[in-house]
Amino acid sequence: MKNLRLVSISLAAAVTVLFSIAAETAAEFSARARALHERLVTLDTHLDTPLSLRRANWDIMQRHNYAVDGTQVDYPRLVKGGIDGGWWAIYTAQGPLTPAGRQAARNTALQTALRIHQLVAAHPQQFELALTADDAARIATAGKRVFYLSMENGYPFGEDLSLVRTFYELGVRMVSPVHVLHNDLADSASDAKARVWDGLSPLGKQLVAECNRLGIVLDASHASDAAFDQMLEVSATPVLLSHSSCRTVCPHPRNIDDERMRRLAARGGVIQLNTVSAYVIDTPANPGRNQAMADLRAKYGNRGGLTEEQNQAMLRERREIVAKFPVPMATFDDFLKHVLHALKIVGPEHVGFGADWDGGGGVTGMEDVSFCYKITEALLLAGYTEKNLANIWGGNALRLLRAAEDYAKSLK
Amino acid sequence: MKNLRLVSISLAAAVTVLFSIAAETAAEFSARARALHERLVTLDTHLDTPLSLRRANWDIMQRHNYAVDGTQVDYPRLVKGGIDGGWWAIYTAQGPLTPAGRQAARNTALQTALRIHQLVAAHPQQFELALTADDAARIATAGKRVFYLSMENGYPFGEDLSLVRTFYELGVRMVSPVHVLHNDLADSASDAKARVWDGLSPLGKQLVAECNRLGIVLDASHASDAAFDQMLEVSATPVLLSHSSCRTVCPHPRNIDDERMRRLAARGGVIQLNTVSAYVIDTPANPGRNQAMADLRAKYGNRGGLTEEQNQAMLRERREIVAKFPVPMATFDDFLKHVLHALKIVGPEHVGFGADWDGGGGVTGMEDVSFCYKITEALLLAGYTEKNLANIWGGNALRLLRAAEDYAKSLK
Repeated sequence: MKNLRLVSISLAAAVTVLFSIAAETAAEFSARARALHERLVTLDTHLDTPLSLRRANWDIMQRHNYAVDGTQVDYPRLVKGGIDGGWWAIYTAQGPLTPAGRQAARNTALQTALRIHQLVAAHPQQFELALTADDAARIATAGKRVFYLSMENGYPFGEDLSLVRTFYELGVRMVSPVHVLHNDLADSASDAKARVWDGLSPLGKQLVAECNRLGIVLDASHASDAAFDQMLEVSATPVLLSHSSCRTVCPHPRNIDDERMRRLAARGGVIQLNTVSAYVIDTPANPGRNQAMADLRAKYGNRGGLTEEQNQAMLRERREIVAKFPVPMATFDDFLKHVLHALKIVGPEHVGFGADWDGGGGVTGMEDVSFCYKITEALLLAGYTEKNLANIWGGNALRLLRAAEDYAKSLK
Repeated sequence: MKNLRLVSISLAAAVTVLFSIAAETAAEFSARARALHERLVTLDTHLDTPLSLRRANWDIMQRHNYAVDGTQVDYPRLVKGGIDGGWWAIYTAQGPLTPAGRQAARNTALQTALRIHQLVAAHPQQFELALTADDAARIATAGKRVFYLSMENGYPFGEDLSLVRTFYELGVRMVSPVHVLHNDLADSASDAKARVWDGLSPLGKQLVAECNRLGIVLDASHASDAAFDQMLEVSATPVLLSHSSCRTVCPHPRNIDDERMRRLAARGGVIQLNTVSAYVIDTPANPGRNQAMADLRAKYGNRGGLTEEQNQAMLRERREIVAKFPVPMATFDDFLKHVLHALKIVGPEHVGFGADWDGGGGVTGMEDVSFCYKITEALLLAGYTEKNLANIWGGNALRLLRAAEDYAKSLK
């Protein structure tokens, strides 16, 4: 989810910097949680950090501050949060469903893939590309960060599914067909317009089959309920929700209901819990703010294309909008309600985390990836075991990748 | 040119290794030539070395031996030859002109681009991507190798010229429309079949305009005479022959005649001289050898896809063919005849080098890139000045890139 990026910056910059330094000082996690993260492979299934790579002079090896530059993931913060890596998303904003629109989406996605590869190749001591389920443990054990590639939105494929193989060969191992607007492949959960396909389009069903054939995990986050149902039905391997929340806890169409969650788990699937505030807590309609944010987006476009000066101006104006049209912000405890609810409904073999860092995620008390120990501490307190946490923090998502690999191999 | 790869391996491996060690020991070049290469920016406009990157365990940072593994360029040999880098080709073999064929070509070319980027990113102390004409001197002065990207064969664009911009954004700054077979864009100089377009196709003319618009140099090597003429006519900026020889010296349709060379130069263009033996000297027809080589290619496919063991087996069988069906091999002096002829016809502001290393280039006495000082020594002996050599070794090709950049800027 990109539309609510930086939503939690609600104080003047100076104050928030001080606040966040204070929070950080306080964020000394228990030795038990830290030792656990040392032993486990800890992965997040939806990192929008590749968007940061478009920013001039932004260096992933430097420590940044969310309150200052709006980013939530860099190498020092991954280390501090005890996170080994995860799925780095090639995100594509939904544009027009025209030949030119599809070509532009393909071209942009290819450049994003290239940018991720360049990043990984430039830091061989710290980063490594992961292509198989077995790679994660090997890379994490070597003390490096794990880079799986995923695609958020299948729009770059256009109507040419031969590109699925190309992106697979570029390293992509997880694909979600649709984002916040209906497209050629599927209906979205969030498009205000009437549904187009009543789920997946015929091409969307072919996409599922092609992903199965290649060994790519299907990601149903952002898909409409009907599209979710059909992905579950059509896919030969278990489906993942890379960054989703629980509709019982927060009644938003972007979230998943308990019945669907149970069906997902019954077929071996996993829900990875999201931290985007507007999906974590019921947020009242705020048309003034929506309009002002839409105007801001129209003025500045995609944040990735901005100079640092423009980015600072955009952040300043955004803070003014947020101050003028306040919305309640979800807290860490609100997020935890979703985690515990999902665990109650489907159990620890079907739950994980996809916080949507750098894509609109972050709650008060867990503003960036460096706070991830908090989740572990809360789950230890709630009585979950090391084995449970091993599955939740990575084992479950990797099980789905392994199932996708095994199915692809079985076809050969 | 790929079909004659390794053509010069004509002795048993052990003998050639000894021979090449002897040659190398002898290859101590004059202090004057070495000092000159230190001062100049020395670039080759057609390096097929990206093909080597597909080989498992082949490490460009290690020194290899042409007689052993068939490669001609690696980091140590570039350094030894005093070559700062050049245009690294995304080469695509011509396949069927079908939607599936075009998609496969596009997908393969994208992967080749990615592979080059990964290589450069993995060696930031030794290599650097070059995107503008100004980059070469800066990178060379820093003691690094210069990586411009080029495309040999426009087949990967298929019928979708929006991809030209994508490849531009992936770093491509030189494009040749066609290889050894006619395609969607142009007629080839070497296709035995009747001409299709009588030069450029309408799409080929659009390609020229799009390259002009973006700031990409047009490369007419491999194009038919008529396609060459039309590229010269249509292109708003000077045209380059990235690896070509002189038809007056060796009457092969792949080579350029004096009248065309003069017209090329009159419009500011440059011929970069090739070292492929079959284009350097008149080689008698050898149908037995051609058939045996075709069978070998059919058996082993593209060398890049082979394991080291398969590659060794292929090289072994190739040596047997070469021994059974010998062909005369061009020598360094034969190559020099082309250089001196081109210099006589168009002068030192319109001549350069594109030896087709790793793509079939190499003559007896200059078997790989480490021997490049020999050219400088010969030209110094022939009375060419440092200023001439500065242009020949890089200035001329960079002038064309700068002209392409300036034209693209003028449209904005």
